[in-house]
Amino acid sequence: MSKSAGKVWHGAAYYPELWRDRVDEDLGLMREAGINLVRVGEFAWSSLEPEEGRYDLDWLEEVLEKCAGAGIDVVLCTPTPTPPRWLTLKYPEVLRVDRDGQAFQHGSRQHVSHTSPRYRAFSRRITEALAKRFGRHRAVVAWQTDNEFLCHVDGDYGPTAEAAWHAWLERKYGTIERLNETWGARIWSEDYPSFDAVPMPAKTPFHQAPGTATGQHHCSLAKDWGHFVSDTVVAFQKEQVEIIRAHSDAPITHNHIQQDRVAAEDLFADLDFAATDPYVDYENTWRVLRTLDWMRGAKMDRAGRTVPYMIMETSPSHNGATHPGHRTHPEGFLRAEAAVYLAMGGTAFCYWLWRQQRSGVEMCHGHVVTAWGTRGVGWKNVRAVTELIEKIGPMLREIPPARAEVAIHESKHARAHLLRAEPLWHEYNHWNTPTEEVYRPVMEMGLWRDVRFEGADVSGYRAVLSPFMPCLTDALGDRMTGFMESGGTWVVGPMSGCRTEFGTVHTDAGLGRLDGLAGVRTLYATGIQGCRGSLGEGEIDLGWYCFGLEAASGDCHVLGEYLDGPAAGTAWCVERVVGKGRIVLLAAHAPGRLGEVYEHVLGGLGLRRLRSSWGTAVVPREGDGRRAYVVANWDGQGGTAELPAGGTDLVTGRAVSAGTVEVEPFGVVAVVCA
Amino acid sequence: MSKSAGKVWHGAAYYPELWRDRVDEDLGLMREAGINLVRVGEFAWSSLEPEEGRYDLDWLEEVLEKCAGAGIDVVLCTPTPTPPRWLTLKYPEVLRVDRDGQAFQHGSRQHVSHTSPRYRAFSRRITEALAKRFGRHRAVVAWQTDNEFLCHVDGDYGPTAEAAWHAWLERKYGTIERLNETWGARIWSEDYPSFDAVPMPAKTPFHQAPGTATGQHHCSLAKDWGHFVSDTVVAFQKEQVEIIRAHSDAPITHNHIQQDRVAAEDLFADLDFAATDPYVDYENTWRVLRTLDWMRGAKMDRAGRTVPYMIMETSPSHNGATHPGHRTHPEGFLRAEAAVYLAMGGTAFCYWLWRQQRSGVEMCHGHVVTAWGTRGVGWKNVRAVTELIEKIGPMLREIPPARAEVAIHESKHARAHLLRAEPLWHEYNHWNTPTEEVYRPVMEMGLWRDVRFEGADVSGYRAVLSPFMPCLTDALGDRMTGFMESGGTWVVGPMSGCRTEFGTVHTDAGLGRLDGLAGVRTLYATGIQGCRGSLGEGEIDLGWYCFGLEAASGDCHVLGEYLDGPAAGTAWCVERVVGKGRIVLLAAHAPGRLGEVYEHVLGGLGLRRLRSSWGTAVVPREGDGRRAYVVANWDGQGGTAELPAGGTDLVTGRAVSAGTVEVEPFGVVAVVCA
Amino acid sequence: MSKSAGKVWHGAAYYPELWRDRVDEDLGLMREAGINLVRVGEFAWSSLEPEEGRYDLDWLEEVLEKCAGAGIDVVLCTPTPTPPRWLTLKYPEVLRVDRDGQAFQHGSRQHVSHTSPRYRAFSRRITEALAKRFGRHRAVVAWQTDNEFLCHVDGDYGPTAEAAWHAWLERKYGTIERLNETWGARIWSEDYPSFDAVPMPAKTPFHQAPGTATGQHHCSLAKDWGHFVSDTVVAFQKEQVEIIRAHSDAPITHNHIQQDRVAAEDLFADLDFAATDPYVDYENTWRVLRTLDWMRGAKMDRAGRTVPYMIMETSPSHNGATHPGHRTHPEGFLRAEAAVYLAMGGTAFCYWLWRQQRSGVEMCHGHVVTAWGTRGVGWKNVRAVTELIEKIGPMLREIPPARAEVAIHESKHARAHLLRAEPLWHEYNHWNTPTEEVYRPVMEMGLWRDVRFEGADVSGYRAVLSPFMPCLTDALGDRMTGFMESGGTWVVGPMSGCRTEFGTVHTDAGLGRLDGLAGVRTLYATGIQGCRGSLGEGEIDLGWYCFGLEAASGDCHVLGEYLDGPAAGTAWCVERVVGKGRIVLLAAHAPGRLGEVYEHVLGGLGLRRLRSSWGTAVVPREGDGRRAYVVANWDGQGGTAELPAGGTDLVTGRAVSAGTVEVEPFGVVAVVCA
Repeated sequence: MSKSAGKVWHGAAYYPELWRDRVDEDLGLMREAGINLVRVGEFAWSSLEPEEGRYDLDWLEEVLEKCAGAGIDVVLCTPTPTPPRWLTLKYPEVLRVDRDGQAFQHGSRQHVSHTSPRYRAFSRRITEALAKRFGRHRAVVAWQTDNEFLCHVDGDYGPTAEAAWHAWLERKYGTIERLNETWGARIWSEDYPSFDAVPMPAKTPFHQAPGTATGQHHCSLAKDWGHFVSDTVVAFQKEQVEIIRAHSDAPITHNHIQQDRVAAEDLFADLDFAATDPYVDYENTWRVLRTLDWMRGAKMDRAGRTVPYMIMETSPSHNGATHPGHRTHPEGFLRAEAAVYLAMGGTAFCYWLWRQQRSGVEMCHGHVVTAWGTRGVGWKNVRAVTELIEKIGPMLREIPPARAEVAIHESKHARAHLLRAEPLWHEYNHWNTPTEEVYRPVMEMGLWRDVRFEGADVSGYRAVLSPFMPCLTDALGDRMTGFMESGGTWVVGPMSGCRTEFGTVHTDAGLGRLDGLAGVRTLYATGIQGCRGSLGEGEIDLGWYCFGLEAASGDCHVLGEYLDGPAAGTAWCVERVVGKGRIVLLAAHAPGRLGEVYEHVLGGLGLRRLRSSWGTAVVPREGDGRRAYVVANWDGQGGTAELPAGGTDLVTGRAVSAGTVEVEPFGVVAVVCA
Repeated sequence: MSKSAGKVWHGAAYYPELWRDRVDEDLGLMREAGINLVRVGEFAWSSLEPEEGRYDLDWLEEVLEKCAGAGIDVVLCTPTPTPPRWLTLKYPEVLRVDRDGQAFQHGSRQHVSHTSPRYRAFSRRITEALAKRFGRHRAVVAWQTDNEFLCHVDGDYGPTAEAAWHAWLERKYGTIERLNETWGARIWSEDYPSFDAVPMPAKTPFHQAPGTATGQHHCSLAKDWGHFVSDTVVAFQKEQVEIIRAHSDAPITHNHIQQDRVAAEDLFADLDFAATDPYVDYENTWRVLRTLDWMRGAKMDRAGRTVPYMIMETSPSHNGATHPGHRTHPEGFLRAEAAVYLAMGGTAFCYWLWRQQRSGVEMCHGHVVTAWGTRGVGWKNVRAVTELIEKIGPMLREIPPARAEVAIHESKHARAHLLRAEPLWHEYNHWNTPTEEVYRPVMEMGLWRDVRFEGADVSGYRAVLSPFMPCLTDALGDRMTGFMESGGTWVVGPMSGCRTEFGTVHTDAGLGRLDGLAGVRTLYATGIQGCRGSLGEGEIDLGWYCFGLEAASGDCHVLGEYLDGPAAGTAWCVERVVGKGRIVLLAAHAPGRLGEVYEHVLGGLGLRRLRSSWGTAVVPREGDGRRAYVVANWDGQGGTAELPAGGTDLVTGRAVSAGTVEVEPFGVVAVVCA
Repeated sequence: MSKSAGKVWHGAAYYPELWRDRVDEDLGLMREAGINLVRVGEFAWSSLEPEEGRYDLDWLEEVLEKCAGAGIDVVLCTPTPTPPRWLTLKYPEVLRVDRDGQAFQHGSRQHVSHTSPRYRAFSRRITEALAKRFGRHRAVVAWQTDNEFLCHVDGDYGPTAEAAWHAWLERKYGTIERLNETWGARIWSEDYPSFDAVPMPAKTPFHQAPGTATGQHHCSLAKDWGHFVSDTVVAFQKEQVEIIRAHSDAPITHNHIQQDRVAAEDLFADLDFAATDPYVDYENTWRVLRTLDWMRGAKMDRAGRTVPYMIMETSPSHNGATHPGHRTHPEGFLRAEAAVYLAMGGTAFCYWLWRQQRSGVEMCHGHVVTAWGTRGVGWKNVRAVTELIEKIGPMLREIPPARAEVAIHESKHARAHLLRAEPLWHEYNHWNTPTEEVYRPVMEMGLWRDVRFEGADVSGYRAVLSPFMPCLTDALGDRMTGFMESGGTWVVGPMSGCRTEFGTVHTDAGLGRLDGLAGVRTLYATGIQGCRGSLGEGEIDLGWYCFGLEAASGDCHVLGEYLDGPAAGTAWCVERVVGKGRIVLLAAHAPGRLGEVYEHVLGGLGLRRLRSSWGTAVVPREGDGRRAYVVANWDGQGGTAELPAGGTDLVTGRAVSAGTVEVEPFGVVAVVCA
């Protein structure tokens, strides 16, 4: 973010195309509120290109000029989620087709096909028009591609998608024989005579609800389809990114929210920094932290430091569409939320939206200013955020988030590709399980952690956790072997390693490469509704999709066995030294109690802890010999954190000692160590 | 109802086309049961026009003659809900298309398009054939158009509907620019180049369930679509009405049940009297009373007196289709039900159906006589109704229902058009909320009330309640201002006034015209899950979609403030004198406790009360200086009512004193005052 | 089963086409496990006919040879549930069309139309190729047609199905006038001008969910459609059966599981022995027994002895597709399950599947051997079954299952045709009601029973129960009259007799012919949520779809009356002597307590009892003067059975006395009487 490196922004989504006669009023109110960044343009296509090929960018230039004059920076967006009606009317073939074979009606958003050559040509042209005209405008500090890719729609089943699917498969497999063999396609006589013969996973009989477009497809086909759907969006975006880069030095991002449909790892590979749109009832704030942890790790500079992310949208008061969604934030929460989201690696905290919509389907959503120009219900809290940023902003610019000792893997193969096709266990939920069953216990252990893509370099971490990753690719296997050989601890499982990267079962060893790495023989897989297992001297409840193991190598150390249930007498948790490090293989889940397992297997590493009471976050910042801690209570109950060092609280100016620090309900303490 | 003014009927739906050889047997049994009215013909099209253009009406004439001979009056129906198979076979374009783009299969009912020129031509021809032949038949005392419009289907998405939609929009808006501006269509680049470009609200991405024909459309489009769907039916009916009127003096009605799809106000504007088909488990009888209240107000004669409505269908024992629906009515209930339904303004109490269906999909529905000719399970109760009508019928003919002091608005803009598109609050339910949250408390307050269409003349009422009416039209604003200036009290809200009549948010004042009328400034809107509010000296729980107000005029009197929650410190209930009357603005809902609010704001008016215990209805009749009270217990628990005056009970012949009167379980008392 | 008469098999489904290089390894492991039967080929079409008209059967011959060499018998299947991709690609018209008008995508199984002439030609050709080549192969002991007909799909709505439907109706009714009259089609103007005009029951308005392919059709049409769908499959199968018979003497079966879609009575009429695929959590084992009871009666030899059935699929440990389904069987259960399933009349106990799938959608299903070749989680239990069969197999071969004194009717008219269209009561569930409400009480009474098709000869039974059979055909009426005249007791009802065999209501008497047989007049039908009834000297709770009766004949003996509720005072249970026997008519259901009714009405017959505690099955075997009893505990709690005679336990070799025998949890005792 060249133009404004290190700036901390307080922003809002802004639709001047809908309120042209109120721009001056709006900018005045923004200054009063302390808004210094607006995101503009993501739905404005019909205002920017009112007829095919006729661009009307003057109004936008006027807005940008006024912003610049008011000291308000701009994130400029490509308007591609909402094509104008003239486009879909003249070229109806651009409309997206759903799994039931029905094309979406014009209206709403995202009703277009990312594989349509026609639509992509229009996308390139409007992107180029914007990039040429505004690529070097002084107000434009960043770009956003499109908006929340695939947040409303899933795979496209239209004819251009089908052709792209076949081409994608051909690129991946080369020959149809290789696809058939890799997929094990012969099962149910599904082997294909040609790439053109491979269906898209539409309506099919197995486990379908009669009369609906449901049903289960071959797992490898479904996994590749998920991969293809994601790649389609990545390729669509790449065209925009390349055009923007040709005309602008401003960094580019996307406000990503649908990780199970578009692999964040692939999407951000082409971008300059990360962004997302968290909307939660305040009591669920902790669920957002996992997202921030992967955002912080999504882009790293050459020095291995986080490239700050943007919170591109959050509500100043409540979300909502045709009715209010979650509860209106309680007084004081917004400031605590901003403190945490920025402290964890953010550089912008932006609202959706500035002025309440006067029409459409989101009139009940929270906003800073009402449609009739009064200060909205969250106004006072927005002002409090402004005041907080004034106090802690300089520290955030100077001291980066601390590097963690522990990383948790975020796997595109597991989440966006495989587990939607084959969840392995009926209680597995790709939205909640990684957060509730893995992330929360790690947080409760007081471990400062990164969440890292499976393709990321993990050297430097002391331990890496790889839970719920059925597919382990060869590349990951190589990387993790190197990691262990250099001294790292790899805790792999539960439910990891039992599928190839093509979604098939291994035919050489139950957990493929893990069998060898952990020195075990995997006897069998089975579902366990609940059983007892040993863990060192203690016991623990186990379950879900489990594997019975036996030690096959003398240096395999069994840490836990199944004590009853179908796998009684076999091992579920083993450890083995690999190079200077070790592998810990968890062949069963301990529902709700994975933290105890992590304590047991990581206990010996002496990892640093940074503890706080539930409902209060504590975030370490560290760099160039300086340290700071931001503590914020997000549940409104007040709480405590244990600070390793004392210093000065930037909020009150008071001295704070090392040890227990108390925070008021929704309170924020930002200690810069002496 | 010229031919039989004031007659009280006991009727049944009758399908002689299915039982031609049993007509004499049926008429004999009807006389035994006390049935003096039959509804005939609404599904008989294939018997009346067995081939295109060949009418066979002789059998019907024979039936009508026999009815006349037996002293049984007839409501004759147009048979348009069930076109013959030859019609849909030769002209498949008449089939209705559903939101998923699939045409309905022939069979069942209502599978036709009201916008199809072909279907409408056939509708006119069969209507004319019937009207010409039977328009002045001595047995025919009334007509019914079609049957329960849109009870099974919603909007039609076929090509003739699309063309009609575009024409409707053009008639309403004149130019596409005006539509775009009025709708705020530019949002999400949805502005339209022409009327032809405006989509019907089919499958769209926002909030859709993948693979289904769901999704949210622009609120103004959705509201107008609701209006258009309703208008389409009204226009279809109007053709039939005009044809019938050309050949008959008998009054015309429709048995209307789908108020959220077809606006009753518009439908009955073209009709002569109201009718509906209530089917409830006896414990839900109170829910029907709200319907009767609007039916009573649906048609008024020039003297401001109710035109009596017909209960066109109700079950003698239980409803059902392929299995019995609600519980079989307990012994005695039917008579109490008839007493209430007739006392509240009815002139006919008719069953569905006379003789059990022998085929089709409703063989398990209640009936008076079984398919094999025995007396059905409800026979004894039917006879009890006959005896009751003999006793109270003369009074019902002579003394009309009393005029109420209070009216509750029934808004087509809110119910049939807007709130289906934008419910504003997740707990708002257009079936139950107006009944449970508004009507029940008013009933429990002992207020005799009318429910009146928003377009009705409300002069003469002392207070009008307008709850859950987000859209207030200019016309209504004018009318209610006049009402207040003449001395009336207008209690408006909760959730009223926050949208324009086009479903957009006001941009001048939060509640539009209400801000000025109530002398307030609306600060903001927000959802409240529950908070405390003051109300005079007391407190009350508030919530739902709420507005924070502040007094902007010296004569605005704040009656209640939010005590906590997001709007704490602002006003939620204010009062202001307008002319000789006043406005009371409720900017929040008090879930389950709106009665307390009404008591507070209406308490000073000294409205007459007519109280009864829950489960017992008391209905006042009054006219030409005479008074009567019908008391009936519908919950089987027995109960009491407080009568303002004593008199003679028509049921027992005994004298009844003013004050508390007790009724037995399912008992009926009908007191004519001295 | 000529080649191996009386052999008891322990088998598994085997897919050598997917594991060609592991056949020797697999056969070796099978011998170790004790597997002596494999089912082969049902999904192997693309391996058997890799291109149109080019058959590759050599690999299969090689497998069969190896099986024969290893002493492993083979059930060979036609591979028609999974057509190769080249077929659907070149001839897309073979794809099945669902109720929503959408064709199924290629992939999965059963996505083809049984009425497609093209598909049927391919089916005949591949069947002939297999039958010619392997019809007399020494390894092939039986054939299976296709696989689990219609387990994933319901009626087909494509054009060839429509034409077949019209032809089917014309064959059944001859003239359209007869159809119209029989169906009572004139209701709702649904009378048809020609057979071609009769729709398939696709999307229709009545009770539909808007935007979906739902809705209710005319009951007679829907009933005939169900009949037609079933007949279509039967006709499809018949072609295969005739071809196989021309080339093979081995008996033919089908593994049937979808009794509500394909009438077992019709399907097995063309087959030589019965087979099915039960998958249950162990606690639901009792639900399978009803299936075994009809399987045992499905095919009888000329001497009236059961032709043994095959358990063609069950899981060695757990079922599952993309995740494990029910709980993994507890240790020991599998052996008890095999004991019961075989003792009740089986000759084979086979697993799905031998080797875990390495791809597709069922990788999480239980298996004997893992994909990587280790012994699966159920291996030990499979071995225990082998050992059990060694001990009890000879007895099973020599002593057949005992003939029962009581039969329960299984009605295709009720289950597969009518009750899906008109369930008559909201709690009626065609999966559970016959099992839970009828079968379980009979089992708990200690009655050894057969379940017999409605078309079966029931002479020889002492009592026949005919519950939940709304349609009674004339043929059944004749047969049951003869049965009673010869001394049998017919207990008919609840909910039986109230519809004609065309699904219409009788117009002469409420229960049609039953009125006359039982000497009653049926007054009316009504739904009863629950009421009290008398039963002899006692009382009982009654409900569901009920009939009020009165005695119309002097010899009609009222056993029970309704004591309250809508039918109070009428009779619900009557008895009448017919010839040497009698009829008992149950005109109401006694939910959860039908056993008490059966005790009351059957008590006088002195039927033999064979009691066991719940969770333990006891099965009598009897023939040629020899007797045996197999007792097995399936709920893991242990239990007892009362043996009429003592003998030697084949499992332990110990003597067992008459009277109470105890079994351990999951224990098996097999007593051969002295």
